Amino acid sequence: MQVNGKHYRAVWMKNGTVYAIDQTKLPFRFDVFESGDYKTTSNIINSMLIRGAGTIGAVAGYAMAQASKNAPKKDYESYIYNARTLIESTRPTAQDLWQAVERVYKAALSSREKAVKTAHLIADEYVRAAIKIGEEGEKLIENETRILTHCNAGWLALVDYGSALSPLFLANKNGKNIFVYVDETRPRNQGALLTAFELSNEGIAHSVITDNAAAFYMAEKKVDMVITGADRIAANGDVANKIGTLEKAIAARYFDIPFYVAAPLSTFDTASASGKEIPIEHRSEMEVRKVRGIDDDGEFMRVETVNPNSQVSNPAFDITPSKLISGIITEKGIIKANSSEISVLQED
Amino acid sequence: MQVNGKHYRAVWMKNGTVYAIDQTKLPFRFDVFESGDYKTTSNIINSMLIRGAGTIGAVAGYAMAQASKNAPKKDYESYIYNARTLIESTRPTAQDLWQAVERVYKAALSSREKAVKTAHLIADEYVRAAIKIGEEGEKLIENETRILTHCNAGWLALVDYGSALSPLFLANKNGKNIFVYVDETRPRNQGALLTAFELSNEGIAHSVITDNAAAFYMAEKKVDMVITGADRIAANGDVANKIGTLEKAIAARYFDIPFYVAAPLSTFDTASASGKEIPIEHRSEMEVRKVRGIDDDGEFMRVETVNPNSQVSNPAFDITPSKLISGIITEKGIIKANSSEISVLQED
Repeated sequence: MQVNGKHYRAVWMKNGTVYAIDQTKLPFRFDVFESGDYKTTSNIINSMLIRGAGTIGAVAGYAMAQASKNAPKKDYESYIYNARTLIESTRPTAQDLWQAVERVYKAALSSREKAVKTAHLIADEYVRAAIKIGEEGEKLIENETRILTHCNAGWLALVDYGSALSPLFLANKNGKNIFVYVDETRPRNQGALLTAFELSNEGIAHSVITDNAAAFYMAEKKVDMVITGADRIAANGDVANKIGTLEKAIAARYFDIPFYVAAPLSTFDTASASGKEIPIEHRSEMEVRKVRGIDDDGEFMRVETVNPNSQVSNPAFDITPSKLISGIITEKGIIKANSSEISVLQED
Repeated sequence: MQVNGKHYRAVWMKNGTVYAIDQTKLPFRFDVFESGDYKTTSNIINSMLIRGAGTIGAVAGYAMAQASKNAPKKDYESYIYNARTLIESTRPTAQDLWQAVERVYKAALSSREKAVKTAHLIADEYVRAAIKIGEEGEKLIENETRILTHCNAGWLALVDYGSALSPLFLANKNGKNIFVYVDETRPRNQGALLTAFELSNEGIAHSVITDNAAAFYMAEKKVDMVITGADRIAANGDVANKIGTLEKAIAARYFDIPFYVAAPLSTFDTASASGKEIPIEHRSEMEVRKVRGIDDDGEFMRVETVNPNSQVSNPAFDITPSKLISGIITEKGIIKANSSEISVLQED
């Protein structure tokens, strides 16, 4: 998508160097981070310099390709095996990460060239999937639709175009008037920072709200549909996504508002029969305790917003059961998730 | 309740001066603000130096008493009438504010002494109600109960003891093991700051969570009941309370978890047939856009956490429909709200 009139992907690789837009500095600063080795690249996943299921997948694939490229001839196999283990450990809930690492790892077992080619292929596949998700999802959006979204499932999260936001970008491009309620998405505020940034750049009308206010606007009959992304989808259609997604889905059902999830098929984990089998990442309490933003001089800093003597718990994801989801928007159409349908589509 | 071994109320008046614990500085600093005139006192309601339905009521009553005390003999009636209008305008959703101002205003029409006496009486009534609410609510809490609460409905919010937290304080005092999930309660973080402070001071085990994580813990079967306070309760039992309460109530119903509201009878507004008639305060977007906390040097400051080009919407309350509420814990017992029952209890 466009930033200051120039087209960017969230991440790309050239001559063995990985370039990633530093999402921790957006929307206040636009910086591109460069990494020459797989450990540094793994670290930008773990530190969340980049995030979002597809972008994590693409970066993980590139990291695996870098490992293959830099591995010494002598210990090639053990080197790339260790690299794979390290990269996989960065974000336990992300299905795309596992898939991408697995594919590039297998390619690396045949050759370095294949590893690099496969990593590029994965990134390109995400972009193609995102475009198709946009086309499929856009059919659901009538003129004057008001949409609520949670976290960021835009182009920053899926290399380009996005999952949940791709249909919105296309609807806007096609001249439909839409309005978007953007949950700020504590604790990391990806909605207030990244989704709002993306919508602003595309000139789409929107308002940032606290996560607490979603049901208020639903009760006011100001939300016509909800679309979110997904970090992992089980065979039965249960969706692991950013903490708070479950609450939005429950509220949407209560008010009879369609609740859609948009994700490429790579996000499906058919090996997990249900959401119960998806591990949930618990992140540092510092994310909750100390809120990050910029001060009046534009400098990044953190302010403490929690009673210092208190314990903090910080689950990063929750599981939304399939029954609360109206449909899953994929690059191969909108589906009501079930294992047989998914397997067929994935094999196509 | 106790702070550093000394007993405090959230607000008190002595010789015409109103003393209020500055809730904007807690838990990081314990300051008592002094106000000698009703305009300054009104302003501490509006600026939210104090907050919470009962504390707002008590402060509003004291402000009205100050107006009566300081009114010039010549224009006494118009002076106190204007004061009443100003005080009433500070927080449009708070029922207790209207009730307290009305009572002290009527008393002021007979004499200054009656105004002061009535203001003290109102504060004392809140404290007695809070103690009774604690006794009534404590019966619901078995040993090993895990309770989720939203915002702050503790002693800071109700002069002393609290509404939602009063049963918890008593259960703890009676030797019951309880655990409390504390929603941080964006945008002002009263849960993370004030409720966590109060629970810490009482030695009650608790964990602060993002508002997004409430349904996660419900889904994990780690929440046995929810208790919140209320800012205004309509005749049909619909409850206006801090933004996000509605979402918690919907989630609790989805998971079949009892959802209780605790409030003194003064919070009931039988003139409002339902929640639809309760005005909802929309507060400044700055509350959402710039998060307030302390920096590493302990200085209060704000950091910007929202894309600067984006619009922000900030409704401060929502309406939880009566049907989602298991019961309302009042000083006269736990009731299933309906207008006839309320009227009878209020007249007792």
